Amino acid sequence: MSFNTFGKLFRFTTWGESHGPAIGCVVDGCPPNINLSEKDIQIDLDRRKPGKSKFTSQRKESDKVKILSGVFQGKTTGTPISMIIQNVDSKSRDYESIKNKFRPGHADYTYFLKYGIRDFRGGGRQSARETASRVAAGAVAKTVLKKIIGNKFKVIGAVVQLGILGCDVKNWNEKEIRKNPFFCPDKKSIKLWEKYLMSIRKAGSSCGAIIELRASGIPAGLGSPIYSKLDADIANALMSINAVKGVNIGAGMTSAFLSGEENSDEMRIVKKKTKFKSNNAGGILGGISSGQDIITSFAVKPTSSILNLRETINKKGKNTKISVRGRHDPCVGIRAVPIGEAMICCVLLDHYLMNRGQCS
Amino acid sequence: MSFNTFGKLFRFTTWGESHGPAIGCVVDGCPPNINLSEKDIQIDLDRRKPGKSKFTSQRKESDKVKILSGVFQGKTTGTPISMIIQNVDSKSRDYESIKNKFRPGHADYTYFLKYGIRDFRGGGRQSARETASRVAAGAVAKTVLKKIIGNKFKVIGAVVQLGILGCDVKNWNEKEIRKNPFFCPDKKSIKLWEKYLMSIRKAGSSCGAIIELRASGIPAGLGSPIYSKLDADIANALMSINAVKGVNIGAGMTSAFLSGEENSDEMRIVKKKTKFKSNNAGGILGGISSGQDIITSFAVKPTSSILNLRETINKKGKNTKISVRGRHDPCVGIRAVPIGEAMICCVLLDHYLMNRGQCS
Amino acid sequence: MSFNTFGKLFRFTTWGESHGPAIGCVVDGCPPNINLSEKDIQIDLDRRKPGKSKFTSQRKESDKVKILSGVFQGKTTGTPISMIIQNVDSKSRDYESIKNKFRPGHADYTYFLKYGIRDFRGGGRQSARETASRVAAGAVAKTVLKKIIGNKFKVIGAVVQLGILGCDVKNWNEKEIRKNPFFCPDKKSIKLWEKYLMSIRKAGSSCGAIIELRASGIPAGLGSPIYSKLDADIANALMSINAVKGVNIGAGMTSAFLSGEENSDEMRIVKKKTKFKSNNAGGILGGISSGQDIITSFAVKPTSSILNLRETINKKGKNTKISVRGRHDPCVGIRAVPIGEAMICCVLLDHYLMNRGQCS
Amino acid sequence: MSFNTFGKLFRFTTWGESHGPAIGCVVDGCPPNINLSEKDIQIDLDRRKPGKSKFTSQRKESDKVKILSGVFQGKTTGTPISMIIQNVDSKSRDYESIKNKFRPGHADYTYFLKYGIRDFRGGGRQSARETASRVAAGAVAKTVLKKIIGNKFKVIGAVVQLGILGCDVKNWNEKEIRKNPFFCPDKKSIKLWEKYLMSIRKAGSSCGAIIELRASGIPAGLGSPIYSKLDADIANALMSINAVKGVNIGAGMTSAFLSGEENSDEMRIVKKKTKFKSNNAGGILGGISSGQDIITSFAVKPTSSILNLRETINKKGKNTKISVRGRHDPCVGIRAVPIGEAMICCVLLDHYLMNRGQCS
Repeated sequence: MSFNTFGKLFRFTTWGESHGPAIGCVVDGCPPNINLSEKDIQIDLDRRKPGKSKFTSQRKESDKVKILSGVFQGKTTGTPISMIIQNVDSKSRDYESIKNKFRPGHADYTYFLKYGIRDFRGGGRQSARETASRVAAGAVAKTVLKKIIGNKFKVIGAVVQLGILGCDVKNWNEKEIRKNPFFCPDKKSIKLWEKYLMSIRKAGSSCGAIIELRASGIPAGLGSPIYSKLDADIANALMSINAVKGVNIGAGMTSAFLSGEENSDEMRIVKKKTKFKSNNAGGILGGISSGQDIITSFAVKPTSSILNLRETINKKGKNTKISVRGRHDPCVGIRAVPIGEAMICCVLLDHYLMNRGQCS
Repeated sequence: MSFNTFGKLFRFTTWGESHGPAIGCVVDGCPPNINLSEKDIQIDLDRRKPGKSKFTSQRKESDKVKILSGVFQGKTTGTPISMIIQNVDSKSRDYESIKNKFRPGHADYTYFLKYGIRDFRGGGRQSARETASRVAAGAVAKTVLKKIIGNKFKVIGAVVQLGILGCDVKNWNEKEIRKNPFFCPDKKSIKLWEKYLMSIRKAGSSCGAIIELRASGIPAGLGSPIYSKLDADIANALMSINAVKGVNIGAGMTSAFLSGEENSDEMRIVKKKTKFKSNNAGGILGGISSGQDIITSFAVKPTSSILNLRETINKKGKNTKISVRGRHDPCVGIRAVPIGEAMICCVLLDHYLMNRGQCS
Repeated sequence: MSFNTFGKLFRFTTWGESHGPAIGCVVDGCPPNINLSEKDIQIDLDRRKPGKSKFTSQRKESDKVKILSGVFQGKTTGTPISMIIQNVDSKSRDYESIKNKFRPGHADYTYFLKYGIRDFRGGGRQSARETASRVAAGAVAKTVLKKIIGNKFKVIGAVVQLGILGCDVKNWNEKEIRKNPFFCPDKKSIKLWEKYLMSIRKAGSSCGAIIELRASGIPAGLGSPIYSKLDADIANALMSINAVKGVNIGAGMTSAFLSGEENSDEMRIVKKKTKFKSNNAGGILGGISSGQDIITSFAVKPTSSILNLRETINKKGKNTKISVRGRHDPCVGIRAVPIGEAMICCVLLDHYLMNRGQCS
Repeated sequence: MSFNTFGKLFRFTTWGESHGPAIGCVVDGCPPNINLSEKDIQIDLDRRKPGKSKFTSQRKESDKVKILSGVFQGKTTGTPISMIIQNVDSKSRDYESIKNKFRPGHADYTYFLKYGIRDFRGGGRQSARETASRVAAGAVAKTVLKKIIGNKFKVIGAVVQLGILGCDVKNWNEKEIRKNPFFCPDKKSIKLWEKYLMSIRKAGSSCGAIIELRASGIPAGLGSPIYSKLDADIANALMSINAVKGVNIGAGMTSAFLSGEENSDEMRIVKKKTKFKSNNAGGILGGISSGQDIITSFAVKPTSSILNLRETINKKGKNTKISVRGRHDPCVGIRAVPIGEAMICCVLLDHYLMNRGQCS
């Protein structure tokens, strides 16, 4: 069971609503004796937090994390790590205009059908605000993996498609990703993306995005067939992020168009090490990591909250229209980058610990 | 934990290797008092089994299923249903040429790294032969869902892309799907597909495929946020199938290219029932079914076993070459259709049972 | 997996250390639309909290619970309920004398061997302070069960053995249990118990206890054979409480001494209802509730922290002695009564929800 | 979830009914590269099987196990191990006299209430025949533990109380246990036990038993607080065995009667090794193994199938009487010895694997 819990040996449970007093998570299964501070987590939270540029939501959240347990004298103790983030900018707003309407593209309708009750304040639990907790848990996982694997371990994500605009992935530049507000890996695309997104924002519209994640330094042997495959767990992890509608591993959907010769990655021994001549597999064969970089990508649908008037229904079963004002990201996909990275870190650490448990 | 077990309340555990004496599965959590016979399961196994046309593997397996427990006087009892399928056509073959080499695109290399031991007979556990067990479990799930939901319940899959050849999904015809050897939904494409696949087979090559699955009659409210979302569980289920590299829900990866206006499905009340004006969401919002048809698709990479000589390495860490002869599907994606359907049925029944457990 | 999580469909995850800033839990799987307030939980916390009489620890904890999520406008929403309790009376105390020694009977030694790190402040995570979180979760479960089952639902516990002193269970009186500081069900025993426990406290010693729990109004059919049996889950739940060393269901260990005729509970139809002529089974047959009262008992070992000097070893592997001063319960078994009740409520609700999920 | 599955990282799923064609189990999570043959499993099955002496059921089952998967060239491969045991002596018997009556003390009534259907053939799934599968799984666990830990690893059980007759545990003699039909550890008790049990059998009655299990060579550090404690998992494992009503760890229920001084086990360094001066804890502190022997005991209620006439009800809700003829053990507790050992082995291996996964 895993309603609000993710993972098997490294697990986190998240809680909290968009406009409740706070959100947070409990990380369980973290190995002991790892140096961990609030600062390690804050760095990643700051990368996700809203209001950093004009291209994201203007909600003002400092997203300051506090560790309540599981760390003693600067080190993890192996006991659960409880983290809490106060909701600051959730004060009373007028929900009258939308509280009885179901916003198209949002989960208002399905939550109401499932639970028979609706927290209309900013979407309540369905809000992407929950993802701050994931980022906190992911930061713990990343810290552990860095300690265990060393500096060669790295997970980095980038937006490779912004609405209808792609970028040249061959120009992938990590420093660039950290500098621009879009997590764009290709310097040449930034100017155009700026104009494009600004026009979308002004039009009261929104656009989708594709995020690519690259993990390097991953040991071979992670992943447990048949039903805890590394790629299946990654697909589960990424698809669980709000607004995600598609997940690729390596060549992904494109692999359908390839021939067997093009697709399967040939192998060579070079300087006594196994090298693959390509990476269509995305570093995973039979659900188990091969030692290559793990490459995955996912699509985020356009923000459903848009200004333009949309047809919908209300709680009484009547037809109506809705225009969602407020502080929305014109492209929620941008802030999904650190969230995707966090989920990958959690999946990898989980499988790392499982691999130790499972094998002789 | 779920190494070889899939599901939460409706769960199945599979076992068996490609060339062992038998394969099988244990289905647990099946509701009692459902009429179930071996025939109900055999129908679906026959749709998956090899050797049915010249476009699939020529391995001869009757795939006759035997129920060993859990059914008494023709009805399920609520206790585990054990099913067994004898391996018939697994007799001694010469593995000498490949037993010490790692076949590119296969999991030979990663299984060996993980387990330190290799069952070289037809891939052992990594073989897609395991999927027969999934189909058997899925047939149980389908039977239960038909009993619970009634005749409006239906899950049907089709190959919508065969290598570089698509088909016109607007011509989707269920009868047609059942008639042609490709599970192609569009009658107009079949001739061309035949020629194309025959040429690939003759060339000793292979191609990939995209399969689309449509489930109708699904009640709203299935799926448990945040980490047992219906779409995340579907992604997990489909990505766990051998050779699958990408999964879409609804518009999937394409949703990245849409605007908010294009993407979010508007709602209307028509004759006192909720109707959506489109289905980009694939019937799932916030991880919960909306009552619309559930639409999902997945990509299967081209068969890795091809005649053409490929570079690879062997167990001793030496460079070598390999050509995989034998009885292989030129497009494993074709036989993935009933497997995908089976997985969807299992996920849906699981969430159906969970939904009863969770809600008031 | 369930390091710090208990339950399947109704689940809670606890966190926090004896002397950290706070403790708490996240309750997941709670059905929606149930009235729930902090007061519902506080009532049970107050029954467990220390410092209420001279027979329990003098640590002063108000144990005020705060609900941070999962409740909206006074009702549960089906989303996780996060609860937090600040640690108040955990201010700096001199741990110098014990921080490098392993207290006999405590888990200092085993935690240190397992984790390689030790939180010496009041036992850290191993402290029975964690059980406040269980009581909070149990209060939620109880509230839900009362809503679902109605007023006939009741779980009540009592101390039936205090060290070497028993009591007459035939005099079981619920009102009496609520009045005396020992949760003793037999008014006639209280005076003697007072004297006995006072003498133990003055001697710097401690004693054990046996607690009996009775649950009534439980529907038949709860429990899932073979490995989620109701009694096996109860045994697991009670044995997980600090210092518990034995668990009985119904006649328990005593059943070994009975004949088949004495032990098996005969059945009669009385006024169209099934009646059992005895209840040696404790209301559970084959792991499934029979509709009788569920009767279980468990033994709590004597408090390990005693004044009298004991032989032990220290972190450096040297022999030494230890006398544990401080605020300890002379009999921790007393405060285990509300904890046991809480665990039973959680197990029962969990199986109640599972039963709905599993059966047709 | 674990309806018919036991364990976390080392897991087994059992299936099959008393009078179906076969029973069996699938063992998952077994480490690879361990020598394993059917003989390793048969040895333990033979210790449990019926018909070995006049003191057990006269059902004739050869209980021959067959391994269907997971072992290649004599070694485990890390993939699921499927084992099957044919039911031989389950041929048609006249159930007419009992098929519509609920046998007191059995689970007939509760299964029928839960599932609405009843497999009346020898109790169907509720029959203790299922425990043969546990013994098979336990034999795998034992083989793995012997390989990992070495010869110092040992789990041995004995009947220490047969009905009203105890034995002197100080005379515990392993060789003796293997020789007599009662698994009695004290040679001096055997004659008396023989007479006693023969008289019970002749009287058409039955008696209960207490079994003690001792595991030695267990590394310290196994067990995961708070909700995967080693003792809680043992309690769960033993209470899940048919007819078990009580479980003790170490001093168990008796610990209630001890003082703090008597109960807590003092520690000493002797020849650079940690020694405990007693073992009331049963080798477990705070849910984690201490390196001492793990001592646990459990009570088995008397066989419910007895000749003497008993009052009961039938499916139509009418009062009736029943006398259960057939091939029953006068004391089912005897054959519970190898079952208890098997469960302990499974729990220990599971925690051994978890400990590797969890800790740094």
